[in-house]
Amino acid sequence: MAPRVSEEHLKQRRANIMSAATNVFIEHGYERTTMNHVMDAAGVSRGGLYQYFSNKEDLFEAILEERLSDEAVNTAHMLKTTESHWDLLMQLLFGEEGKPDAKMDSLAPSKLEFFITGRNVERRREYGRKRYELGVRLYADVIKAGQDSGEFSNRFDSELIARSIITFIDGLALEDAILAENAVQLEKQSSLFVEYLKMAMNV
Amino acid sequence: MAPRVSEEHLKQRRANIMSAATNVFIEHGYERTTMNHVMDAAGVSRGGLYQYFSNKEDLFEAILEERLSDEAVNTAHMLKTTESHWDLLMQLLFGEEGKPDAKMDSLAPSKLEFFITGRNVERRREYGRKRYELGVRLYADVIKAGQDSGEFSNRFDSELIARSIITFIDGLALEDAILAENAVQLEKQSSLFVEYLKMAMNV
Repeated sequence: MAPRVSEEHLKQRRANIMSAATNVFIEHGYERTTMNHVMDAAGVSRGGLYQYFSNKEDLFEAILEERLSDEAVNTAHMLKTTESHWDLLMQLLFGEEGKPDAKMDSLAPSKLEFFITGRNVERRREYGRKRYELGVRLYADVIKAGQDSGEFSNRFDSELIARSIITFIDGLALEDAILAENAVQLEKQSSLFVEYLKMAMNV
Repeated sequence: MAPRVSEEHLKQRRANIMSAATNVFIEHGYERTTMNHVMDAAGVSRGGLYQYFSNKEDLFEAILEERLSDEAVNTAHMLKTTESHWDLLMQLLFGEEGKPDAKMDSLAPSKLEFFITGRNVERRREYGRKRYELGVRLYADVIKAGQDSGEFSNRFDSELIARSIITFIDGLALEDAILAENAVQLEKQSSLFVEYLKMAMNV
């Protein structure tokens, strides 16, 4: 059995690479980022990088997965203790503050590129679908729990509401990536969508 | 002055090229389509094609513009005569039937490619923004007219509701292009969004 210290150390190095790579993807987008950029940013050798990630796709998927699984773990934990499923839903949507703001996830344009340029590759497509379903599950679980507790109306199916939330976020991310600054009115649009949800769920 | 017949003839040839090109874009997507594809599909020579369109971008923009301006003309016309702004809004959203269905505009994936791959080119960005604003205007005019006539509630700003509609359509188009077939549940999601609108506009 390998010593525990070494395992911790390897984990930490992997985390450092992912953190540096995230910044590189944010700066250059998915297509234009190369493994060389990541080596430079993380201060590791080619061997040091490829020990953890076999290519750019592998590295990007690891970043996406970590983010989604962090959210899933947090949400599952909070579902057990929360008194307001609405607050939890708003935090899931807008981060800790739970309020719409004018900021978009800075990795969003890279994610769009990743899925759109790869949309005709079966593996990428399947990966996108799995990820989409996980996202739907995450929101649907919170909505369902709120419906079961009587906090939300049962009028609409929790999973369908969850899908509509993700569709709206995807639309905002797309427009934010494509259009000139401020054209999208992120904050106002998000606030209006929250009103739609309130009416649909009778909050 | 050139004879009228010749002008009509030129217009018709241009329309034929655009119609053939639309099918080529639907089949190959924007990036992979070449002017050679279009020549073959339209049965015209290189000279015959370049007489009308100086490059692929020019041709694609002409197709987009024709579609949007057709919609704008139709809508302006119907705004004068319609008895139900709600029906008009639904037709604008879902076509003549005015009901959600499981079909997405087949040119949508090419449009996404066009705007996303060009998002760092100032000209394309500006073009996307102008197009977005025209779309917002189209929906906002119908909603505003319905609000002014008392058919819709004034609770939310007509332009903001219009933006939310376009965001939702963009999100659906994106997911439809990326995900495996049927994962998006286009029809169900569209129906739910219509319910959101009904509540927001008190229909």
